[in-house]
Amino acid sequence: MTTSSFSPRGSKQEIESGTAFQPKFDENGLIPAVVTDAGSGELLMVGYMNEEALRRTVETGEAWYWSRSRGEYWKKGGTSGQVQTVREIRTDCDQDAIWLKVDVAGNGATCHVGYRSCFYRAVRRNDDGGVTLALVEPEKVYDPGEVYGRDQG
Amino acid sequence: MTTSSFSPRGSKQEIESGTAFQPKFDENGLIPAVVTDAGSGELLMVGYMNEEALRRTVETGEAWYWSRSRGEYWKKGGTSGQVQTVREIRTDCDQDAIWLKVDVAGNGATCHVGYRSCFYRAVRRNDDGGVTLALVEPEKVYDPGEVYGRDQG
Repeated sequence: MTTSSFSPRGSKQEIESGTAFQPKFDENGLIPAVVTDAGSGELLMVGYMNEEALRRTVETGEAWYWSRSRGEYWKKGGTSGQVQTVREIRTDCDQDAIWLKVDVAGNGATCHVGYRSCFYRAVRRNDDGGVTLALVEPEKVYDPGEVYGRDQG
Repeated sequence: MTTSSFSPRGSKQEIESGTAFQPKFDENGLIPAVVTDAGSGELLMVGYMNEEALRRTVETGEAWYWSRSRGEYWKKGGTSGQVQTVREIRTDCDQDAIWLKVDVAGNGATCHVGYRSCFYRAVRRNDDGGVTLALVEPEKVYDPGEVYGRDQG
């Protein structure tokens, strides 16, 4: 398999309107990846990729990330079975963010806490100006105590 | 108006399962915000907030960001009219990402290049292993030459 190569950053015009993929990695060598369910469109998670993780994702069609907490490559689902098959990859105007549309294998959940999406809580502002979180995705797909592994970012 | 205050970071258990909003800002004081259309669910953009921008967003119900390129607060739509009215705010398991569901005012577009979404291009892998971008949102909502201002991140 030929190694996919990304282009060096060009002019603002090239980045915004061109056809060369010129992803911008931050000072830590990372680019954020927004992950949605290819079928429902639901936001599942936000992960981070370095250049090699992005290359593996493009080449294998399965999502790879860089775990900032563990400092290692992280194939989503490697432990949990919640493998993400990539249906489409997009980038934004500045090419400093990635959007993955995926199908989730295994038990269909994405979050290591047990929910389908990592975004299971909403921010609510109270009358007194305080801010609290409310659970808006009440049902867990699985009990993380049973399959909890190292499959988290 | 009482100033909204966020909670200091607690234990892993508190962060993942609690009701206290304990957003994590990175070493630059920023947290990424994924922005989707409250009606269609379409991914519109990824922006960044510092604590004050997040506070303004929570308190005003309109999206504020921190512009990394300009080093200033950025009320989305302040120049373009593409104001984002926030319908729901969520956070993820680690509380290190924000999800805004918004209604977009003005001409309904989000991207300063003229498209409805900033994610108007898909990453395609060619037979030779090369990677290029393909325009997947062909119609611009407006000509940015006419209203192009400082309303971009």
